[in-house]
Amino acid sequence: MDVTAILQRLKEQVIELPSWAVGNSGTRYGTFREEGSARTIWDKIDDCAEIQRVLGITPVMASHVAWDVTEDGQYAPVRSYAEEKGLKIGTVHPDVFSRQEYIYGSICSPKPEVREFTQQHFLDCVRVAKEMGSKVIGMWVADGTNYPGQDNLRERKHRLYEGLKVLYDAMDEDMKLVIEYKPFEPFFYTTDIADWGMSMLMCQKLGNRAKVLVDLGHHLPGVNIEQIISTLLDENMLGGFHMNNRRYADDDLITGTVNPMDLFLIYKEIIDAEQGGVKTDITYMLDQSHNIEPSIEGIIYSVMNAQTAYARALVIDREALGKAQEEYDVVGANKIVMDAFNTDVQPLLEQARIELGLSDTDPLRNYRQGGYAQKIKQERGFDGINTLGG
Amino acid sequence: MDVTAILQRLKEQVIELPSWAVGNSGTRYGTFREEGSARTIWDKIDDCAEIQRVLGITPVMASHVAWDVTEDGQYAPVRSYAEEKGLKIGTVHPDVFSRQEYIYGSICSPKPEVREFTQQHFLDCVRVAKEMGSKVIGMWVADGTNYPGQDNLRERKHRLYEGLKVLYDAMDEDMKLVIEYKPFEPFFYTTDIADWGMSMLMCQKLGNRAKVLVDLGHHLPGVNIEQIISTLLDENMLGGFHMNNRRYADDDLITGTVNPMDLFLIYKEIIDAEQGGVKTDITYMLDQSHNIEPSIEGIIYSVMNAQTAYARALVIDREALGKAQEEYDVVGANKIVMDAFNTDVQPLLEQARIELGLSDTDPLRNYRQGGYAQKIKQERGFDGINTLGG
Amino acid sequence: MDVTAILQRLKEQVIELPSWAVGNSGTRYGTFREEGSARTIWDKIDDCAEIQRVLGITPVMASHVAWDVTEDGQYAPVRSYAEEKGLKIGTVHPDVFSRQEYIYGSICSPKPEVREFTQQHFLDCVRVAKEMGSKVIGMWVADGTNYPGQDNLRERKHRLYEGLKVLYDAMDEDMKLVIEYKPFEPFFYTTDIADWGMSMLMCQKLGNRAKVLVDLGHHLPGVNIEQIISTLLDENMLGGFHMNNRRYADDDLITGTVNPMDLFLIYKEIIDAEQGGVKTDITYMLDQSHNIEPSIEGIIYSVMNAQTAYARALVIDREALGKAQEEYDVVGANKIVMDAFNTDVQPLLEQARIELGLSDTDPLRNYRQGGYAQKIKQERGFDGINTLGG
Amino acid sequence: MDVTAILQRLKEQVIELPSWAVGNSGTRYGTFREEGSARTIWDKIDDCAEIQRVLGITPVMASHVAWDVTEDGQYAPVRSYAEEKGLKIGTVHPDVFSRQEYIYGSICSPKPEVREFTQQHFLDCVRVAKEMGSKVIGMWVADGTNYPGQDNLRERKHRLYEGLKVLYDAMDEDMKLVIEYKPFEPFFYTTDIADWGMSMLMCQKLGNRAKVLVDLGHHLPGVNIEQIISTLLDENMLGGFHMNNRRYADDDLITGTVNPMDLFLIYKEIIDAEQGGVKTDITYMLDQSHNIEPSIEGIIYSVMNAQTAYARALVIDREALGKAQEEYDVVGANKIVMDAFNTDVQPLLEQARIELGLSDTDPLRNYRQGGYAQKIKQERGFDGINTLGG
Repeated sequence: MDVTAILQRLKEQVIELPSWAVGNSGTRYGTFREEGSARTIWDKIDDCAEIQRVLGITPVMASHVAWDVTEDGQYAPVRSYAEEKGLKIGTVHPDVFSRQEYIYGSICSPKPEVREFTQQHFLDCVRVAKEMGSKVIGMWVADGTNYPGQDNLRERKHRLYEGLKVLYDAMDEDMKLVIEYKPFEPFFYTTDIADWGMSMLMCQKLGNRAKVLVDLGHHLPGVNIEQIISTLLDENMLGGFHMNNRRYADDDLITGTVNPMDLFLIYKEIIDAEQGGVKTDITYMLDQSHNIEPSIEGIIYSVMNAQTAYARALVIDREALGKAQEEYDVVGANKIVMDAFNTDVQPLLEQARIELGLSDTDPLRNYRQGGYAQKIKQERGFDGINTLGG
Repeated sequence: MDVTAILQRLKEQVIELPSWAVGNSGTRYGTFREEGSARTIWDKIDDCAEIQRVLGITPVMASHVAWDVTEDGQYAPVRSYAEEKGLKIGTVHPDVFSRQEYIYGSICSPKPEVREFTQQHFLDCVRVAKEMGSKVIGMWVADGTNYPGQDNLRERKHRLYEGLKVLYDAMDEDMKLVIEYKPFEPFFYTTDIADWGMSMLMCQKLGNRAKVLVDLGHHLPGVNIEQIISTLLDENMLGGFHMNNRRYADDDLITGTVNPMDLFLIYKEIIDAEQGGVKTDITYMLDQSHNIEPSIEGIIYSVMNAQTAYARALVIDREALGKAQEEYDVVGANKIVMDAFNTDVQPLLEQARIELGLSDTDPLRNYRQGGYAQKIKQERGFDGINTLGG
Repeated sequence: MDVTAILQRLKEQVIELPSWAVGNSGTRYGTFREEGSARTIWDKIDDCAEIQRVLGITPVMASHVAWDVTEDGQYAPVRSYAEEKGLKIGTVHPDVFSRQEYIYGSICSPKPEVREFTQQHFLDCVRVAKEMGSKVIGMWVADGTNYPGQDNLRERKHRLYEGLKVLYDAMDEDMKLVIEYKPFEPFFYTTDIADWGMSMLMCQKLGNRAKVLVDLGHHLPGVNIEQIISTLLDENMLGGFHMNNRRYADDDLITGTVNPMDLFLIYKEIIDAEQGGVKTDITYMLDQSHNIEPSIEGIIYSVMNAQTAYARALVIDREALGKAQEEYDVVGANKIVMDAFNTDVQPLLEQARIELGLSDTDPLRNYRQGGYAQKIKQERGFDGINTLGG
Repeated sequence: MDVTAILQRLKEQVIELPSWAVGNSGTRYGTFREEGSARTIWDKIDDCAEIQRVLGITPVMASHVAWDVTEDGQYAPVRSYAEEKGLKIGTVHPDVFSRQEYIYGSICSPKPEVREFTQQHFLDCVRVAKEMGSKVIGMWVADGTNYPGQDNLRERKHRLYEGLKVLYDAMDEDMKLVIEYKPFEPFFYTTDIADWGMSMLMCQKLGNRAKVLVDLGHHLPGVNIEQIISTLLDENMLGGFHMNNRRYADDDLITGTVNPMDLFLIYKEIIDAEQGGVKTDITYMLDQSHNIEPSIEGIIYSVMNAQTAYARALVIDREALGKAQEEYDVVGANKIVMDAFNTDVQPLLEQARIELGLSDTDPLRNYRQGGYAQKIKQERGFDGINTLGG
């Protein structure tokens, strides 16, 4: 690929910002609160706009239905304010985990009234997506069980399909449903969509607007994610990504900090598929928990890491790679891939940022020097925390 | 389920004996050889017949094409001798890993001549299965790669399907193909059929006589195997099992010794499905490596452990369980399952063994006291090992 | 061991109840609240007393300094009320994770003022333990980092020792410090005491009243816990247990429900050591999260599971086992262990409960029929939850 | 660190070549043989000399007592020939796994005659090391058990110490014993030295010439190796490394190909410790299985990857890092580390190779173009393999 083409790709990639990640997040042991963190949906939009200012490839805010609404239940003003700030609303996420009713699951719950309630929520979400101008529903079914015997697994699978069908059927023809999978948490015996196979099975049953969503942190130790990506691409079944990093469980760390090779190899498979003639339609989103670092910094840094990985995957010498593969040259082929990974792509990224019209080629520096962080600290303050000795 | 029905089920279960497991096996560091271990296909048949003598539910020998053949390449005499000894030939396994050509894979190899060679081998295997009177082909595609870049993953997937199609199309209408998956070993970057999803995908493409084979040891840490079983059963996609136990990797330990709950919960899901109206056709096989224990003892013990797990799953009070589930009684439901697991099913197993006409209700004691072990030690001797200080 | 001796052991075992587990607990996604769950320290003591009523071997309540205190900061009334209810205060746990200051750690924090604050808290804890009549401090240092480079690991190790030394030196000569380890959560790059080796290292430096605390859920997949136990026992370094079960991460499930073999084999190693002449002083505690099941039921069930595991370990035929080991009889030796595991120890447990003077040999039934659950539901009510559609 | 100092470090690092890795290696399923692979100890020395020719920092061959000996049991000629070729003999490794006697372990075996035999072997090894001019014994105790109950774990631990003490006591005052650990394989229930804690415990008991050897592949999924390194360094307990890469189990892949961050972060901790005043004496060795790639290529590539990781760790801006840490700047501190990781260190490595006097700055190209590979293929031939269709 020549430099112009690479720069084009780098400028065209869009990564959705998760509205929920600019707020506070934590572990089950508690949440360390951050000075200046977003308190309202308006704060979140402002933060996303600031992030887009320094990055230029994040003009879309993924949304969580439960949280991204005005105090009086309106969505249209949210869309308007976002648009005013230069942002579109991206993937809309239903909420099936944060209510007391979901103790035994949502659409998989053995309680019929909970399933019905959830299905109604799905219909609301599709309506909201339409109001928001979004074409993608992002579905994480958090349902599961904690103990053998607690529920009948096959019946849960049937309930799962029933619920997803309600959601799928409510969507317009030009909408896409992306279905996430996760091996564990918040439940610890079974999760009703535990891996990509279970997600794909549901997509196959629903129809060709249902695709698999791959969250990088939702895998057991050792899973080869890029092979799953490659398989899904070949089946035309890849819908999108939640980017983050895991070291142990679903740690939701800044993407690219645990094993930068992983993200690079995923991009490599995507480019391989595209160059092999596969038509792709992939929604990229971040989904992370910035437990100790300032959220906005963590998000900006994540996108930069994703760009680095993407640029490296783009500079792989594919002609040489093909030749090495044809000659069964194992070391040579791997070295071509590693040479690309080892390439300093900083100049490419800086050029892309200049062409995007950004005011600084270093987005993190741009943010830190721009005064926004100081401003929100002052305006929003510190959300009622314990202080030392107090 | 009443006692008569339970006993009926215990007597009807058939577990195939792997011809290869009565010989020596080891790790990459070497093989500890056992005095009296099988040297020839005739020895293997004799050993399986002895095992069947004390167990009564193992009248079938699973076969490995490469090894279960006469010195002059005949299969019919193998079948005849087995039948003479009261054994049928069960699942027939092609060999796609033990030849130099398979260094880059077999049907997934980038070398066309290797793929062709393998496909020819598949046709041979189907012919052999017919000669042997077997209706099941057990396919473990050991193929994979060791390094990123070594080969094109999507092309390997296409080659995989092509090769399996040759095998599938050669089978008679009344034959079944069971396709195994494995996350790693003997390759360590990608395995071409790495998990149940990739196996199921191939089965879907091939046709309804292709089913998934679940080897209990072929999972990454933490995978919930019984949920996979439940999913496959609900999709009418479960073909069979390779039983063994893993603690770390594909350890191939005696089944039931690492976590006896696992096997019990798998049987539970099978019975759940059957009672829920799912028609099952499951081939049970052992597939273990008896690295340090006498192989025949290890095999007998394994079947006993499988019977214990099965009996416990059969005695679950399903009426009470259903009621607890309806009442959302999490602890109560789990305790009903655990109470079954904690039941002493020894009396049931002994009764089943009496009704099977066995000469001793303790198969291991029967074997140890029957003189066979002493006999083969004398006749077969010790296969040329280093002795202490020598 | 004869039956009398086994019964004696079963009656003598004491398992501490964690005051914090009778309240609500959840995941980072939220907490499902339970009707009737404990709201105050008085509720917690009442609940523990009820649990002790039906179990008879749990007359001790482990305590968490931050939460087990009167509204006006008094501990003596807590002790008095507990004693009134027949309970002693057991292991006292400092809190080093639930305050904003601990964002970069507590005694390992790079901020000197946080370390000083924590050390002061340690001194308070020792004072509280003395007031409460407790002789054991249970120290979970939750500290860690999330990203490479965030802090200097060796300096953190030095700060860790410094902080623990303050705690250790403040203890009376007849007090014991038990130091927990955990591989991850709430931090996800390093944890300052990540495994038993790091815990033991600190204990070695502190002195012989510092011992290792093993939480069953604080291990990475595949770790052989019973070998760690055996090693610590042989080094006279085992201080106690936090019992629970993990399947994926630190799931804090009901002990004995994931793999009942694990707990059995741990007890086996303890009895092995004791019979081998090792003097043990082990503090047993539960530490679980009852996210979906009623907490009191979950706790009672856990203790019953522990008793089952212990009873099975006690009935191992150790003479036969020793003989099988001497004869290098791998299958025979394992089968002796498995036969004990497969034994129905219900009659033994019932006899022990009768001898303990319990009013019912089934503690769970005793609790469910005793009216306490209904009573607390009425008195304490439902703690302000969302209801369906609301 | 200035460029001169960095270059100095790059030139001074010595990585030992494992004599065993230039031969064929495989999995338990078989070994793919390589044309031209080393057949004799003389071949191995020739291969190591060729590797040193192109790398310049590998003038030492680690040795395996069982295999690196003349046909008539002599070691002196091996040393002479190596010296002639410009190589010294490095770490000497006893063999305690490749004999039938070791079925229940070597120094931990329950059989007294096997323990005695092994201890005698240890004495031989020390003698051989002296003859070879080596000052380091590298001890991998492969011992373990496969099933609970098979042996008494505490007794095995005592036997382990006894055996190691014989080895330690036989060493000269200027010799070093490095003790390896491994969680599993070739045994699958317990390994007698399963983790760094068990290794350290033995070292503590033996004396200050015993240190821990860290094999990068000998860890369970998720273990943070660099924290172990940091801990061992701080305790003056780190003896050396076996370099390789794992993805799933002990895969023994080319180091730096699975997660290049790992190796980089390990080097970072070593440099951190050294700059913090810790005196280090670390033996670096490769220990890999080149199952499908040409062994010599794999080895050269591995050393290049190690150099890349080391160079990146050396260019970390430690002043800026210290400042970011002091300011609790989590993102900033991590980014400084990542910026170093992302640096193109190729110019540095090329300069170092020029200063080392190598004839080409690309060692792999140098090897491929040097004619050696062709020469050994012709001279040594193909070691009797099956060919396609044959």
